[in-house]
Amino acid sequence: MTTYFDSIPSIQFEGTESVNPLAFHHYDASQVVLGKTMAEHLRFAACYWHNFCWDGADVFGQGTFGRPWLKPGDPMQRAKQKADVAFEFFSKLNIPYYCFHDIDVSPEGDSINDYVNNFSAMVDVLEQKQSETGLKLLWGTANLFSNPRYAAGGASNPNPDVFSYGATQVCHAMNATKRLGGENYVLWGGREGYESLLNTDLRQEREQLGRFFTMVAEHKHKIGFKGALLIEPKPQEPTKHQYDYDTATVYGFLKQFGLEQEFKVNIEANHATLAGHSFHHEIATAISLGLFGSIDANRGDAQNGWDTDQFPTEVEELSLVMYEILKSGGFTTGGLNFDCKLRRQSSDPADLFHGHIGGMDHMALALKKAAAILENDFIADKISQRYEGWGQKFGQSILSGQQSLETLTSHTVSNNLQPKHVSGQQELMENKVNRILYG
Amino acid sequence: MTTYFDSIPSIQFEGTESVNPLAFHHYDASQVVLGKTMAEHLRFAACYWHNFCWDGADVFGQGTFGRPWLKPGDPMQRAKQKADVAFEFFSKLNIPYYCFHDIDVSPEGDSINDYVNNFSAMVDVLEQKQSETGLKLLWGTANLFSNPRYAAGGASNPNPDVFSYGATQVCHAMNATKRLGGENYVLWGGREGYESLLNTDLRQEREQLGRFFTMVAEHKHKIGFKGALLIEPKPQEPTKHQYDYDTATVYGFLKQFGLEQEFKVNIEANHATLAGHSFHHEIATAISLGLFGSIDANRGDAQNGWDTDQFPTEVEELSLVMYEILKSGGFTTGGLNFDCKLRRQSSDPADLFHGHIGGMDHMALALKKAAAILENDFIADKISQRYEGWGQKFGQSILSGQQSLETLTSHTVSNNLQPKHVSGQQELMENKVNRILYG
Amino acid sequence: MTTYFDSIPSIQFEGTESVNPLAFHHYDASQVVLGKTMAEHLRFAACYWHNFCWDGADVFGQGTFGRPWLKPGDPMQRAKQKADVAFEFFSKLNIPYYCFHDIDVSPEGDSINDYVNNFSAMVDVLEQKQSETGLKLLWGTANLFSNPRYAAGGASNPNPDVFSYGATQVCHAMNATKRLGGENYVLWGGREGYESLLNTDLRQEREQLGRFFTMVAEHKHKIGFKGALLIEPKPQEPTKHQYDYDTATVYGFLKQFGLEQEFKVNIEANHATLAGHSFHHEIATAISLGLFGSIDANRGDAQNGWDTDQFPTEVEELSLVMYEILKSGGFTTGGLNFDCKLRRQSSDPADLFHGHIGGMDHMALALKKAAAILENDFIADKISQRYEGWGQKFGQSILSGQQSLETLTSHTVSNNLQPKHVSGQQELMENKVNRILYG
Amino acid sequence: MTTYFDSIPSIQFEGTESVNPLAFHHYDASQVVLGKTMAEHLRFAACYWHNFCWDGADVFGQGTFGRPWLKPGDPMQRAKQKADVAFEFFSKLNIPYYCFHDIDVSPEGDSINDYVNNFSAMVDVLEQKQSETGLKLLWGTANLFSNPRYAAGGASNPNPDVFSYGATQVCHAMNATKRLGGENYVLWGGREGYESLLNTDLRQEREQLGRFFTMVAEHKHKIGFKGALLIEPKPQEPTKHQYDYDTATVYGFLKQFGLEQEFKVNIEANHATLAGHSFHHEIATAISLGLFGSIDANRGDAQNGWDTDQFPTEVEELSLVMYEILKSGGFTTGGLNFDCKLRRQSSDPADLFHGHIGGMDHMALALKKAAAILENDFIADKISQRYEGWGQKFGQSILSGQQSLETLTSHTVSNNLQPKHVSGQQELMENKVNRILYG
Repeated sequence: MTTYFDSIPSIQFEGTESVNPLAFHHYDASQVVLGKTMAEHLRFAACYWHNFCWDGADVFGQGTFGRPWLKPGDPMQRAKQKADVAFEFFSKLNIPYYCFHDIDVSPEGDSINDYVNNFSAMVDVLEQKQSETGLKLLWGTANLFSNPRYAAGGASNPNPDVFSYGATQVCHAMNATKRLGGENYVLWGGREGYESLLNTDLRQEREQLGRFFTMVAEHKHKIGFKGALLIEPKPQEPTKHQYDYDTATVYGFLKQFGLEQEFKVNIEANHATLAGHSFHHEIATAISLGLFGSIDANRGDAQNGWDTDQFPTEVEELSLVMYEILKSGGFTTGGLNFDCKLRRQSSDPADLFHGHIGGMDHMALALKKAAAILENDFIADKISQRYEGWGQKFGQSILSGQQSLETLTSHTVSNNLQPKHVSGQQELMENKVNRILYG
Repeated sequence: MTTYFDSIPSIQFEGTESVNPLAFHHYDASQVVLGKTMAEHLRFAACYWHNFCWDGADVFGQGTFGRPWLKPGDPMQRAKQKADVAFEFFSKLNIPYYCFHDIDVSPEGDSINDYVNNFSAMVDVLEQKQSETGLKLLWGTANLFSNPRYAAGGASNPNPDVFSYGATQVCHAMNATKRLGGENYVLWGGREGYESLLNTDLRQEREQLGRFFTMVAEHKHKIGFKGALLIEPKPQEPTKHQYDYDTATVYGFLKQFGLEQEFKVNIEANHATLAGHSFHHEIATAISLGLFGSIDANRGDAQNGWDTDQFPTEVEELSLVMYEILKSGGFTTGGLNFDCKLRRQSSDPADLFHGHIGGMDHMALALKKAAAILENDFIADKISQRYEGWGQKFGQSILSGQQSLETLTSHTVSNNLQPKHVSGQQELMENKVNRILYG
Repeated sequence: MTTYFDSIPSIQFEGTESVNPLAFHHYDASQVVLGKTMAEHLRFAACYWHNFCWDGADVFGQGTFGRPWLKPGDPMQRAKQKADVAFEFFSKLNIPYYCFHDIDVSPEGDSINDYVNNFSAMVDVLEQKQSETGLKLLWGTANLFSNPRYAAGGASNPNPDVFSYGATQVCHAMNATKRLGGENYVLWGGREGYESLLNTDLRQEREQLGRFFTMVAEHKHKIGFKGALLIEPKPQEPTKHQYDYDTATVYGFLKQFGLEQEFKVNIEANHATLAGHSFHHEIATAISLGLFGSIDANRGDAQNGWDTDQFPTEVEELSLVMYEILKSGGFTTGGLNFDCKLRRQSSDPADLFHGHIGGMDHMALALKKAAAILENDFIADKISQRYEGWGQKFGQSILSGQQSLETLTSHTVSNNLQPKHVSGQQELMENKVNRILYG
Repeated sequence: MTTYFDSIPSIQFEGTESVNPLAFHHYDASQVVLGKTMAEHLRFAACYWHNFCWDGADVFGQGTFGRPWLKPGDPMQRAKQKADVAFEFFSKLNIPYYCFHDIDVSPEGDSINDYVNNFSAMVDVLEQKQSETGLKLLWGTANLFSNPRYAAGGASNPNPDVFSYGATQVCHAMNATKRLGGENYVLWGGREGYESLLNTDLRQEREQLGRFFTMVAEHKHKIGFKGALLIEPKPQEPTKHQYDYDTATVYGFLKQFGLEQEFKVNIEANHATLAGHSFHHEIATAISLGLFGSIDANRGDAQNGWDTDQFPTEVEELSLVMYEILKSGGFTTGGLNFDCKLRRQSSDPADLFHGHIGGMDHMALALKKAAAILENDFIADKISQRYEGWGQKFGQSILSGQQSLETLTSHTVSNNLQPKHVSGQQELMENKVNRILYG
């Protein structure tokens, strides 16, 4: 019996001298960097949806990939065929984790009972596959955005029955994630936003979402799920505006509902781009707010305004992202999931491998570069020198609440303070980073 | 003695039939709309800075306006001359309020003592001017962004002495605002952000800002200032990233430091544009979060990515903004401040009047249009019908916390729920709005 | 036999007092404005593709509309059913024109022979429908972007066989357009661009496109097609970069291949937005270059970076667009085609009517407002006064080529020229426009 | 006598092992790459304006740099002091070229006679400085945008006297450029655009510009200037829209006036960003149109929408830019001019060196990486393989004009062509580039 990826070998580390495109040149799973292996640092995952549920269609054209398992046929047979191909791919890629939505792996069917039964059967299949291959589940999630019932949102839908239907999917998806040993559970709210303020009650929808997330946290504790709950910020698309716009917005939302200890964020690079932030910014912000959880490693296109979900290539920015993560202690339950789509023109089976090999090599490179910065951490040195005054007596008296506007006024006037600006030396810092990157 | 605006008459309401460009065609201060006069609803203010402290320079060229009071000369004499011209303008425009930064009205001098003395003298002048003209102060603020000492921020500066210097200015500006009967005090943090993450400690700077805002709230209570404290969100410019990016971000910040009862937001239309939001969005968001305070009424350019601060003209969007404000009860201490710059080519003295007359007429039009929507509020009707289920028993059981993911799962499955999407009728709603706007 | 739009009446003009949402409030086809009827001025068309070939799917979700004729079935039967519904819609809407792509109306089949035969049969159907209803064809076009063969472009494809296949479609679509009395033929090159410069030869692809357009012009003359050939500029999406980025880019392309007399542009509002221009800019630019042909009347979302294709609502900008068109003499063969998509949530059959009624009313309003500006054309007055010097002797000596840098230097120095800037009065001009728009 | 840069040594190449921030780590002027020295390939220039005419002011704040030569004083004395400092900087940096605007180096004075006399005197000074230091002039230009007379444009001004004044400056600047051995002459039209279409005649302004450029070309030939004439595309800022929006737009403009053999483009990276293009795109487009001339090497900020003019750091994109340039034969008269501003916070004299050292090192790195790609040019291989069919008989018959839509239709149908899409392998190509960049 031939398989879809018959022509592709198991992908191995061959080092930078190799000219084999179907090999890792930088990602050596067992190489130790700063006391942990690359595999332990990077915790790579591949996704089910873009790789196995999408046939290359876009808004202006049909699928170009011709994936056999997406052709018409008996839904459960096709789902099992898809699982075979997916796990063949994951195994040949030697990636340790995968991620899925409920209806990526299992047909929705025509009723909630179909959904429940199909999903149950497919979770058995996944469990068997995991056991056979050693693959692990980085996170599971439920799709509350594709079916027409969710056109006006899942948790934020004007109809409570839709909320209830969505709760049912999430309940099953959380239970399945626990059963499959998933290390996180993600909420992606692509339809949780609005198209028009002319028919939307922002306060009402926010309350609904707050209640939904609260139930999710309660359910986690009830079933004893030990993984992290992750919200994935996104500003827009498919909606005009999405409620979890960016990390700072999610933080405010969580604070409003007292959920800031229950949830962290799953940051997607392309969503940062759409929100007008650098990827680096979103990561640094999440860390500074104590919200950093996991990453959807991809990239957007700096000139195009939609979610292109390309494989990450920009080692320059990725190195700074990995620097922030390493400095904050590294991933705990989170990891680097490739929420990436091939370009619609990349129609060869091998292209799926090229995309992921590049993604894994570029993140491994970023890890090595970040470790090199940390060895002699001129960024930390610059920061500690720059803010030195805040660690001293006067700065501390302010931060600890001993000063008021009036006492500071007295201080300023009586000392005739004339503070001068000190150079931020941004260009020097940028040069230093590039000297590490390009040694 | 001739004055700068000698050629300009006092601006009066002349109605829509008038062809006089130096007259109001829609803004009739005493006209009653929904039980209040236009003046009471709109609470217009003109600003000191763009009108009287700027000579038409931009990044690529020198000033084009040739304002006499900005020519070299004795600083205090020039400041008094500027106040004469400003109050002549405010009076001829028949605008009820103005707004200022400390150093708009008073020279900084060479030391903190100069600052204190000059400002004290000029506040006397302003008090006298207000008394003579009946003009009132909508809000005051302190400039913590123009002087080189603030190049790396005011409250978020790496140097605590700069923080102290800024605290001194804010202390004086708050005291002056109280003395002049100001109805609000604003914090605009144009330098409170970062240029590069390579030399910035996000967590530290956030702590500094939190402490600063806390001191401001404490000082307000200490001096018995009854007005509102307002933060003005802005995403960027002059910084790469500013900490009060947008309303949702400010909300999270305030919640972190327990300040959400102490501050509201002053929303600028152009800052919404820069943050990737519609002006309508920012207003509706602030209202939904209980944060709405006041408005900097201007507009950006949909095609240009910087803060153009143009006079508001887009009645279509302004009408929806006024609708949200009226529906939420209208302004309390806030108002509509024209934080607007003339185009650099608009170098005639009369252009200052044309800009403001347009701004006031367009906001008055928006008020009338918003009132017309409210008379037969198809937006509220649509919303109440659309979310009807949430007011009923099942919806209420969810919102009140009686349901869990598991109870909802049982409910969904046992009732075999198959909720269908219902049309959002966005196009119909848009048509209805335009039928009001263009009757 | 019931029909899809049974519940919808024929849409009539009822005037601004009507509260009937399924009626025109401003568009009165027979009303005379500046010497021509509204119908003659506006030349409205509805499109086949978004209205009848799309079921409400987007990148993140399935179709929500449930159109019966898009369900599985015999392709030619479905195509005829679609034509029945389309012409029922066009007729009830009382819109005079429609537009289509070859494969909107006819199934592609499995080979070029299927394509030819199916299209031939469906053109017979369309001819019969036109004859029965009086509907006319504003323009036809061929779809060289949806089928996987065109993933890397049609005319710009690296494979000449694909070019040949595309030429075949265009040949048939041009012939059909002529036969159906179409008044224009459009080329929309959504895949004529690149995804990556790493595998693209820009010069080669430009040559291919130039050759293709030349053949199209030759074919037009050969078959005696009297309509206009139109290129539709678009900057990107689905490609990273499209070769006919905007009107100015198309102009350069046409000049390169000597085709500037053969082609005009079909300007889409949303494509202007994506290219970083206002709709007004693209229209004014096309007119100034002698390239203006026709319009795809829709709008984008100022905050979202993809082609949302919403129905036009922004009368403020549309009025200036109509002003430019009227001033340039009005449409000749072109017209206003609603290349608009319902929002995915607008799933009622009536929503298709609401969208178009709004679009037609808003354009009719824009026409009336533009006519009102022209009655007393303060824009033309301002412009003629502002450039007065160029009509005088010295200005003319420059424009007519009698001056050189050296003669102008002599003139400047010997006359000690000290030209002063004169106010552009932009704010006054904006006020004047709004006084017309809002009476 | 101490000098401004006393504390800074002459900058030397020290190699990648050096930890000296005031040394080149990659730029070794005499290192041979692909048969030419780095100096010959890169032709670096520093600019006069940002480095020596700007004191760190931005729209929201005063200068932070405190440059002594920008303090009040006798204008000609200050101009000479500025020249001393500038040439001290250029010399210590060991950069071979510089660039200037007329009024960067010389005070405008109060009349055209002042201008002429001052400029003449300062050109003498520059000539002397060049002779003493060996520094060369990459290009000169005239500033037609800062003085208020140019608020509504230089060549596109509504007043022909302003056109004449501008012509006078350009005449003098071209003559000076020739005299100083300048290798190019640049036209930057920052005010040659519009603020509002309500007061602008696009066709008239285009004619004026066309006439102006024609005069410039005629003057070049008259005085025997052998260098290239360069237009610098920019989409906007300070204007709403600028007529030389991007390279494709400039091409159309030149074709309209028959000037495409007379002008080339000077491409600025940040202007590409503002126009919605990648830097790589603009370079590749200019080369494909035969317009490539020179580069203003800087970068924008992908998240900010104004012209930040930062020093180039992104070696990933710069390498592809250098690849295109090398493949097209390299610079002829053009070079890499650092049209870069320090960040306003970078107030140390050494920061000017850090910025330029980084820029030069990053471009040298890009040169080395581009040369490495060319050694085994997988991009050229991919492209030649992908377009193979166009070199064969059938493809050539199309390109050479032997085919029509009808002959291609016959060919397609009679051969029953069914062309299949072939993978573009974008991900593989991206991986290959990164394998070169990061070895």
